[in-house]
Amino acid sequence: MTRLSDLGEFGLISRIGKAFRGRSRRAPLGIGDDAAALFVSAGRTLLATTDLLLEGVHFDLATTDLRSLGWKSAAVNLSDIAAMGGIPRFSLTALGIPKGISVAQIDDFYRGFRALLRRHRVDLVGGDTCGSDTDLMISVTVLGEVERTRMLTRAGAKPGDRIFVTGTLGDSAAGLELLRTGPRGRKPAAGRRGTASRGGDTAVRNLIRRHLMPVPRVEIGRRLALSGCVTSMIDVSDGLSSDLGHICEQSGVGAEISAERVPVSRSLRAAAHQLASAPLEYALHGGEDYELLFTARPAMAGRLRALGISAREIGVVLRGRRIVLCRDGARVPLVSSGYEHLV
Amino acid sequence: MTRLSDLGEFGLISRIGKAFRGRSRRAPLGIGDDAAALFVSAGRTLLATTDLLLEGVHFDLATTDLRSLGWKSAAVNLSDIAAMGGIPRFSLTALGIPKGISVAQIDDFYRGFRALLRRHRVDLVGGDTCGSDTDLMISVTVLGEVERTRMLTRAGAKPGDRIFVTGTLGDSAAGLELLRTGPRGRKPAAGRRGTASRGGDTAVRNLIRRHLMPVPRVEIGRRLALSGCVTSMIDVSDGLSSDLGHICEQSGVGAEISAERVPVSRSLRAAAHQLASAPLEYALHGGEDYELLFTARPAMAGRLRALGISAREIGVVLRGRRIVLCRDGARVPLVSSGYEHLV
Repeated sequence: MTRLSDLGEFGLISRIGKAFRGRSRRAPLGIGDDAAALFVSAGRTLLATTDLLLEGVHFDLATTDLRSLGWKSAAVNLSDIAAMGGIPRFSLTALGIPKGISVAQIDDFYRGFRALLRRHRVDLVGGDTCGSDTDLMISVTVLGEVERTRMLTRAGAKPGDRIFVTGTLGDSAAGLELLRTGPRGRKPAAGRRGTASRGGDTAVRNLIRRHLMPVPRVEIGRRLALSGCVTSMIDVSDGLSSDLGHICEQSGVGAEISAERVPVSRSLRAAAHQLASAPLEYALHGGEDYELLFTARPAMAGRLRALGISAREIGVVLRGRRIVLCRDGARVPLVSSGYEHLV
Repeated sequence: MTRLSDLGEFGLISRIGKAFRGRSRRAPLGIGDDAAALFVSAGRTLLATTDLLLEGVHFDLATTDLRSLGWKSAAVNLSDIAAMGGIPRFSLTALGIPKGISVAQIDDFYRGFRALLRRHRVDLVGGDTCGSDTDLMISVTVLGEVERTRMLTRAGAKPGDRIFVTGTLGDSAAGLELLRTGPRGRKPAAGRRGTASRGGDTAVRNLIRRHLMPVPRVEIGRRLALSGCVTSMIDVSDGLSSDLGHICEQSGVGAEISAERVPVSRSLRAAAHQLASAPLEYALHGGEDYELLFTARPAMAGRLRALGISAREIGVVLRGRRIVLCRDGARVPLVSSGYEHLV
């Protein structure tokens, strides 16, 4: 087994450079100089985002493999570019690597990272690696671009706009709970034990997969930006209640969400009996789904459908600053209880 | 005292955003959305670099204050842009913050960071913050730009080119040693005790300051790029022997350095008796000086002087791949023993 200390920092950089070889026209100078040299399309706005993933805070090596972690490290950043309606182009990674990590594990990390980058034709153009005295730490920066007139931000929602979300919510948070605590008391229906158990296992696997290997909504983000229908957008990383709060704060508006419209997956419903809370709780407050939450003028809902953009209408933008949940005929404040990374 | 847990992640982001307020024309959307939106000058190449600074690896909170650390975190990245002949424009920071760090310390970090950014009119446009279970970790990304025909890389040195370095070398490594071990047996000359001691203290302070708050050579890097004289360039972050090795490897050449021409500061000479090794050893192998090491056609040395660019000629580029040090009439291999971050 090759050890990282045998390879050294420069050996590792060279190894990573080789794995990502093939210079793109957009990145005439990638890994191996003081900085990467990149071409941005003329007249477009550059987008830049960075995210930290820390062992013990964002992931646990007991419940994730390095390949999934590499994928997810790319995904969370690509999702930020998707949320602006942009095209991701370039990536830089910085890794702090503890002694216990092998070269094979680092290769796995970059295998997962590369798999998602390739899917979106994003180039790895640089980074930094060093030893860490404590845990594994990952910092990823992704650069992208967007036409100046098409960029979507958190500001722009207007009273009367409809609120939409892509995909389903809550799966990732439920998957994380299942990873951490394991499934709770299974109670398959009598007489259908085998089927229920198999179905339940698939559901659990789906939820865990959504947590470990989320899929950023890059294409749909792009189509939403080009549709001209969308007034504001964010990705659901902290949880619906928290991220809707960001849109409302930046747009200076309030919102009303219908509980029964919030999209919950079959897997989440199927695994409900193994979870501590009801599916809706995960969907409202669970983070890391990396779906897109956006607002559009009411007349535009039909146009989104006509464009084949699949998203569920879950509520409406209101004047004022209150965010309300309609549930069983009652209207209650929707209080953010999403991820809080500094407590 | 405000605690970070009272402030929360969003509170901290808002606090940082306020400290860096004032939107620049180049960054219409900075901190507070999914990604920063940035304008790059038409026809220029985008430069991107990222560096990790980890507690226990790159710094020790017992010997550095947070303000210096903020400055240095910016400096090491600006230096990478300088080494390409570029203009730094934007910065993103990601911080993993352990429980023991106060809001006042984070404010200090950003105070130091901002001081250097302002000097170069660089905008802080985004980042990420989260709690850390272990140590303080800092990841900084800097974006810059350079005219396509002016960019300087590590490749391009040709046999016969002269080798130059700005400023003096070895101060930072000596400063680090003095920080770690304290001054060794002082032996001030008899009868001049007071003077020698005062001079020695100033020297020690200078060396430590060069380690804690290095000055990136952004302006001189820019003038070198525009001079049209320079064939390759790198910043001295790993040490002269190591960084010259990078130029030689990327350019496919060898080099010969004259030991007596390697620039050593008065402070380093004055503090020599308090250090474990001779000044030249720090100058040859010590890292983190963030001076610029570059090559230029032999006929161009005079032109550099005429342009008022202050740099010392220390050697010549050779055919082959050997890197040689001329010292006391002998020619010995110059073996890299600079920083190695993965041992």
